[in-house]
Amino acid sequence: MKYSTPILALVLTAHVCSAQSDIKEDFKPSVLNQPGQEYPQVNSQGYARFRIVAPTADSVRVSLGLGGRGGTLLKRAADSSWTGTTEGPMDEGFHYYNVRIDGGKFNDPGTLNYYGSVRWESGIEIPAHDQDFYALKDVPHGNVQQILFPSPSTKTSRRAFVYTPPGYESQPKKQYPVLYLQHGWGEDETAWSNQGHANLIMDNLIAAGTIQPFIIVMTYGMTNEMKFGGIRNFKVDTFQTVLADELIPYVDAHFRTIAKQSHRAMAGLSMGGMETHMITLNKPELFSYYALLSGGTYTPEEIKDKTKVKLIFLSCGSKERPDGVRNAATALKAAGINSVSYVSENTAHEFQTWRRSLKELAPLLFKN
Amino acid sequence: MKYSTPILALVLTAHVCSAQSDIKEDFKPSVLNQPGQEYPQVNSQGYARFRIVAPTADSVRVSLGLGGRGGTLLKRAADSSWTGTTEGPMDEGFHYYNVRIDGGKFNDPGTLNYYGSVRWESGIEIPAHDQDFYALKDVPHGNVQQILFPSPSTKTSRRAFVYTPPGYESQPKKQYPVLYLQHGWGEDETAWSNQGHANLIMDNLIAAGTIQPFIIVMTYGMTNEMKFGGIRNFKVDTFQTVLADELIPYVDAHFRTIAKQSHRAMAGLSMGGMETHMITLNKPELFSYYALLSGGTYTPEEIKDKTKVKLIFLSCGSKERPDGVRNAATALKAAGINSVSYVSENTAHEFQTWRRSLKELAPLLFKN
Repeated sequence: MKYSTPILALVLTAHVCSAQSDIKEDFKPSVLNQPGQEYPQVNSQGYARFRIVAPTADSVRVSLGLGGRGGTLLKRAADSSWTGTTEGPMDEGFHYYNVRIDGGKFNDPGTLNYYGSVRWESGIEIPAHDQDFYALKDVPHGNVQQILFPSPSTKTSRRAFVYTPPGYESQPKKQYPVLYLQHGWGEDETAWSNQGHANLIMDNLIAAGTIQPFIIVMTYGMTNEMKFGGIRNFKVDTFQTVLADELIPYVDAHFRTIAKQSHRAMAGLSMGGMETHMITLNKPELFSYYALLSGGTYTPEEIKDKTKVKLIFLSCGSKERPDGVRNAATALKAAGINSVSYVSENTAHEFQTWRRSLKELAPLLFKN
Repeated sequence: MKYSTPILALVLTAHVCSAQSDIKEDFKPSVLNQPGQEYPQVNSQGYARFRIVAPTADSVRVSLGLGGRGGTLLKRAADSSWTGTTEGPMDEGFHYYNVRIDGGKFNDPGTLNYYGSVRWESGIEIPAHDQDFYALKDVPHGNVQQILFPSPSTKTSRRAFVYTPPGYESQPKKQYPVLYLQHGWGEDETAWSNQGHANLIMDNLIAAGTIQPFIIVMTYGMTNEMKFGGIRNFKVDTFQTVLADELIPYVDAHFRTIAKQSHRAMAGLSMGGMETHMITLNKPELFSYYALLSGGTYTPEEIKDKTKVKLIFLSCGSKERPDGVRNAATALKAAGINSVSYVSENTAHEFQTWRRSLKELAPLLFKN
């Protein structure tokens, strides 16, 4: 199809104008704002609006918006604050961001902070059409507990968070399977509870009767020394020792786990997927369920003993490379390995993809 | 004693000069810095040095330093960063702060954030001579777990953190007394674990055999709607209902507590002390140990049934009003009520006072 020049010009003009003229003025404070803070705000279309107080600043820019253009440049308002709205709607779900003020990088004082990019960053939540699955509801809630486990190999006590499902205390004889769940590069062991709402996703799935209760363990994957681009040189040994020789034995000794390969899963997002990939292959005696969330794929050749693998789950956002995970799952299935792919619609390499992936993964775990 | 004018002038001059000339150049990154961050730094004398990157800012000021003078004004360095050192040494322990950049209030990107003043603020730690008692050591560690308990009175699930001592999982028949421990104004249920290191204080006391293990429960005291000065109009009813009718029954149902007045304590710092004061008097059937940390005093007349009170613990920093707590404890003892006062040397209305107070309080609890 060909456009004549005048029509093409008209289309472009209309597109540029529509970005500002069609914005619905139903902005509300983001649910991740600090108590009492009115900004940032989000509207029903997914636009975000920011307001930063810095009366004598020369320039204020928010890192969110259209990435290629460096985010959203705020303008000085009559009251000496700086305000601005993203040029377009953003993807549903959670986004990290920061604010450039006169050349320095700071957090938005309006929002809660989340650990990403090897620093605590501002967070904003674009309400998603399916947000009910990670909402805080009036259902029985599991607990998330911080444990400090001894780590002789790194000569310190290390932190992990352990989700125990509702009923864990009231059924003192019951034993549970365990999912070891890893964060991505620049994040840490707080990510899956804070940004990911892993505990609420589990509470809701258990309340709905969709899954059998299991324990989730989240610890720091020691990925943050790596810079983007240095991944090829990544050595998993240090983390593998902490996980296999220190954390798993500690969890099996201190929680009522079913301490068997058949009842242990490992999953990770992004670089945590890369770690999952390496460790599950290096230590086939530890895990029987493997899941990579925006974190690569397995080839059939990598699986040396198919009988030890109960499931390989591969997922990503539709704005990533969905054909990669679909094709990999197809190849694994053709080789006789139980494999499932999942693609999160209209999301990219962000936490909404991984929240949804956990929701899809959980019912497939510990079934057989 | 009288000074002649020349001598007085000399003394003053020497004092002003010494502030900068005697600073030891042994600055190290604060232990509360974010991973890899070199600033802020502290030296062995208690000075703090800040560095903020904001190349085109007009003015950068850190709220710490000498309060009356508005903190520490940073100066532009050759590399376009802003740097400065506090005019004098600061008290040992934890301090909240923020950074004013061109008239806006932000956090220092170098440090971790702590919830205080109804916002997440920057934190810095001045190493204390007695910091060993809250250090992370190679001892058995208890867990800190987030619970979400139903609160019909506030129509939501509310969050609390529960410290369970080491051995809680391995001794499944053992029951424990419980301390309900409240934060101050502008803080929340994260304060006692994050800023206070309550869990590490307990781990270390238990490892040393100084105390019998007990559970600690920390929840949000709903104090943050109040402004300074509005305390006289504070109504404790809403929080009292959450605590007495919702949280305590939930904890007693879900943890292995000794669910009796004789094995339950309440303590609070600052405004949390005010809440403790009100609730222990309103509900004498709930608690038998009362502790106010920089949070006021009791009079003997307020205690209607002395036989129900096993201990009243009153503390503050030596830079607060130590005679107030000492005199109140003396009066309570004279009236036949077991009462102990504690004064933290060289500290003010800050967390070092409260860390030390918890260390002093814990061995006195659940003794009889």
